[in-house]
Amino acid sequence: MTYELDEQPLDHAGMAILDYDECLRLLAVTPVGRVAFAAEGEIVILPVNYVLDGTTVVFRSDGGAKLTAAQEAKTVAFEVDGWDQALGEGWSVIINGRAETVYGDADIERLAGLALQPWGDATARRSWVMIHPDSVSGRRVAPR
Amino acid sequence: MTYELDEQPLDHAGMAILDYDECLRLLAVTPVGRVAFAAEGEIVILPVNYVLDGTTVVFRSDGGAKLTAAQEAKTVAFEVDGWDQALGEGWSVIINGRAETVYGDADIERLAGLALQPWGDATARRSWVMIHPDSVSGRRVAPR
Repeated sequence: MTYELDEQPLDHAGMAILDYDECLRLLAVTPVGRVAFAAEGEIVILPVNYVLDGTTVVFRSDGGAKLTAAQEAKTVAFEVDGWDQALGEGWSVIINGRAETVYGDADIERLAGLALQPWGDATARRSWVMIHPDSVSGRRVAPR
Repeated sequence: MTYELDEQPLDHAGMAILDYDECLRLLAVTPVGRVAFAAEGEIVILPVNYVLDGTTVVFRSDGGAKLTAAQEAKTVAFEVDGWDQALGEGWSVIINGRAETVYGDADIERLAGLALQPWGDATARRSWVMIHPDSVSGRRVAPR
């Protein structure tokens, strides 16, 4: 489904504002996003392949220092986007929320049933992480 | 140019570490990245289309509240990536640095000569922003 831009509200930069259902649809069909958070005075961005579980973002991690920092961060952001350079158009959806590592066996078993295959060395990505959204927003930009 | 993974050093998560030249090459050929920074207790992520000017990331902005926040932030991060879901592989390059809005006429004239065409409403993106890198790092992940 593609919106016509003139059917949608625009923000101050002239970008179309995506509604909540469209944001969730785009989150559900996109395999890779980026988690960003502040740690020790720097901004960390980690690309992750993920799945959407309801409205929760689920990914696997190596459980290293960066993951610890993400959990300690008061807030994390998660971003997905798609674009077509030739057409000069694109969209993005951004979640602000809280990261949580999953420890319960029952929860892990349920998450393991999701269609999430970690890329690279799966044995190094033993931790399951969820991002619980506080807000979800999306924009689409297209040639005028 | 594609590296063979076994020719490259691996990080603790088993991902190949890209060298500086490869990071710059990937930054130079990728049209869209994401700027992330902390503002008012939240993490902001903005996707932008950009060009690389030497080792500096250049993009255009609407000069709104978020841009002001980026400049006031002590540090920003900039991320680009590419991936192939079917193959389960991808790469990312991350810059940590400082955002600066360009005000000088001579500088703006020079930047206007770069091959940077803002998407959407160009008239709403009057500000030129540079990200000066303090560090550049890259990773590549591929099936084992």
